[in-house]
Amino acid sequence: MEDKGLKKAASSLLHKSWKCSAQNHAHVKYLAAQRSTFGKIRYLNTSCALDTDKESENERSSKKAKTGIMLVNMGGPSTLDEVHDFLFRLFSDKDLIPLPAQSRLAPWIAKRRTPTIKEQYSKIGGGSPIRKWTEKQGHEMIKLLDEISPETAPHKCYIGFRYADPLTEDTLEEIEKDGLDRVVAFTQYPQYSCSTTGSSLNAIYRFYKNRNMESNVKWSVIDRWPTHPGLIEAFAGSIKNELEKFPETAQNEVVILFSAHSLPMSVVNRGDSYPAEVAASVHGVMEKLEWSNPYRVVWQSKVCAFCNILVDGYASIYCVIQ
Amino acid sequence: MEDKGLKKAASSLLHKSWKCSAQNHAHVKYLAAQRSTFGKIRYLNTSCALDTDKESENERSSKKAKTGIMLVNMGGPSTLDEVHDFLFRLFSDKDLIPLPAQSRLAPWIAKRRTPTIKEQYSKIGGGSPIRKWTEKQGHEMIKLLDEISPETAPHKCYIGFRYADPLTEDTLEEIEKDGLDRVVAFTQYPQYSCSTTGSSLNAIYRFYKNRNMESNVKWSVIDRWPTHPGLIEAFAGSIKNELEKFPETAQNEVVILFSAHSLPMSVVNRGDSYPAEVAASVHGVMEKLEWSNPYRVVWQSKVCAFCNILVDGYASIYCVIQ
Repeated sequence: MEDKGLKKAASSLLHKSWKCSAQNHAHVKYLAAQRSTFGKIRYLNTSCALDTDKESENERSSKKAKTGIMLVNMGGPSTLDEVHDFLFRLFSDKDLIPLPAQSRLAPWIAKRRTPTIKEQYSKIGGGSPIRKWTEKQGHEMIKLLDEISPETAPHKCYIGFRYADPLTEDTLEEIEKDGLDRVVAFTQYPQYSCSTTGSSLNAIYRFYKNRNMESNVKWSVIDRWPTHPGLIEAFAGSIKNELEKFPETAQNEVVILFSAHSLPMSVVNRGDSYPAEVAASVHGVMEKLEWSNPYRVVWQSKVCAFCNILVDGYASIYCVIQ
Repeated sequence: MEDKGLKKAASSLLHKSWKCSAQNHAHVKYLAAQRSTFGKIRYLNTSCALDTDKESENERSSKKAKTGIMLVNMGGPSTLDEVHDFLFRLFSDKDLIPLPAQSRLAPWIAKRRTPTIKEQYSKIGGGSPIRKWTEKQGHEMIKLLDEISPETAPHKCYIGFRYADPLTEDTLEEIEKDGLDRVVAFTQYPQYSCSTTGSSLNAIYRFYKNRNMESNVKWSVIDRWPTHPGLIEAFAGSIKNELEKFPETAQNEVVILFSAHSLPMSVVNRGDSYPAEVAASVHGVMEKLEWSNPYRVVWQSKVCAFCNILVDGYASIYCVIQ
């Protein structure tokens, strides 16, 4: 996404979600020792500070953050050692995959799938790059927000993944320790689905439901942005670049396939808004491209004998973990 | 659609589809004696002239039309006597409902359904109002086109229905007799589906394929307009009017259900663009309404024991004929 698009996105993020009032809180801590859901003590950095930009980060962290932005997403294992826990959490999530006897089945599937998935991640550099890119995007967003919205500054960015570090629950602990007044849960899924953004929002809800302490954090949510001008511009730009690789005479004949992740029909039929919002994104991109090419919306769905035996209709989940 | 929206629509209709060159042809005839597909001689008015506006119509018809616009749609029986033929054509259309042994099954279903459907049409005034409204809209469109695009005037409007008078094939005969140089097939379905607009385009294709005579007509097509500003404005305006009927404090809590016609999953799965374009319309309307209300896209689909016994998955068709 180019700078202009990002500025627009950051600006609308602030103006659409709320008007933040002035607050004064204690010093921001980036490192928090937390007991993980797996019982080990882990030292986590749940915020978006980049190693490459320590100096300005230290400068920023010397001021108390007023406004937090938590980038929520599925996440992915950063290293091969994290693959098992990632799969275990993924198959344990009833919002994503409601399995029968899930508490017994999830560890069994996770253990069984780990070697294959490890092998696949090792082929793409030994882990998922999602954390690295989310940190980079969050870091740039915060810089822009401080610039364009001084009244809500300093801003601080957090990452809340569902199935990998930094986990949503750990990040929420840090947010509470940081004593922020307002936080936006900003989904990194452009289109809303109960299985994805819905799962993250449920995780936030459960955290506060299970917590005995009072919270002063005022939450707001950016739960979807399927036709945000910055997103449409980014997609259209990438497509244009790819089309230019074809011979000039054939460029307009190339059929563009917009491939989105499939959902089980049971989720579609209960009214999940994902397919309609994917369609809205596609329409926006084609409008931006001035209908230059024929196109289709298609759904990734790899039939997985293993998953199909387990639960019919969840073949699509297989794609997530491939 | 208010006048401004209609003007925009009419203007983009001309500018998006083609630039028409000057032509000079013989006098326009509105009445044509034609042999129908059912073997009877019928005197049809296939154009959009309104009885209430005979004078200006006669004035218009004294000039040779240069540009034809054929409004294509499914149509509906204007009187109860037309119900049987309407159903027969509908169930005979393989693009809409591919039935096994269709040539034998279609007359049987049509005959069986006629009494019930007649009864239902009698409850809404003894017939479908679709022809009346299409004539009115076409008539107004032509007036606007003559005004805003004198270089392609005079324009003449035609109606091409698939299952009711004026039938597409009869209208095409008239277009050929009128000796027009250019005609736009302008679908009245905002969203494209192989079952609807596709069926009409196939009917035009078959007409010319089966015809032995050469044609001088240059065709262009407006095959979809799911997010046309005029359409979005019309929907959003109607919704606003309805919302105002609720108590002011409850207006923003009303859930808006966008109900579209369902398609058999076999049609969806072969990549029909209808669901995605319906979603694009809905997104456009909600954007116009500034996301004032919660909303859902839902699909009309009444389970019909009779149809389900015949062919599984075609329950939706039942809605068409209700």
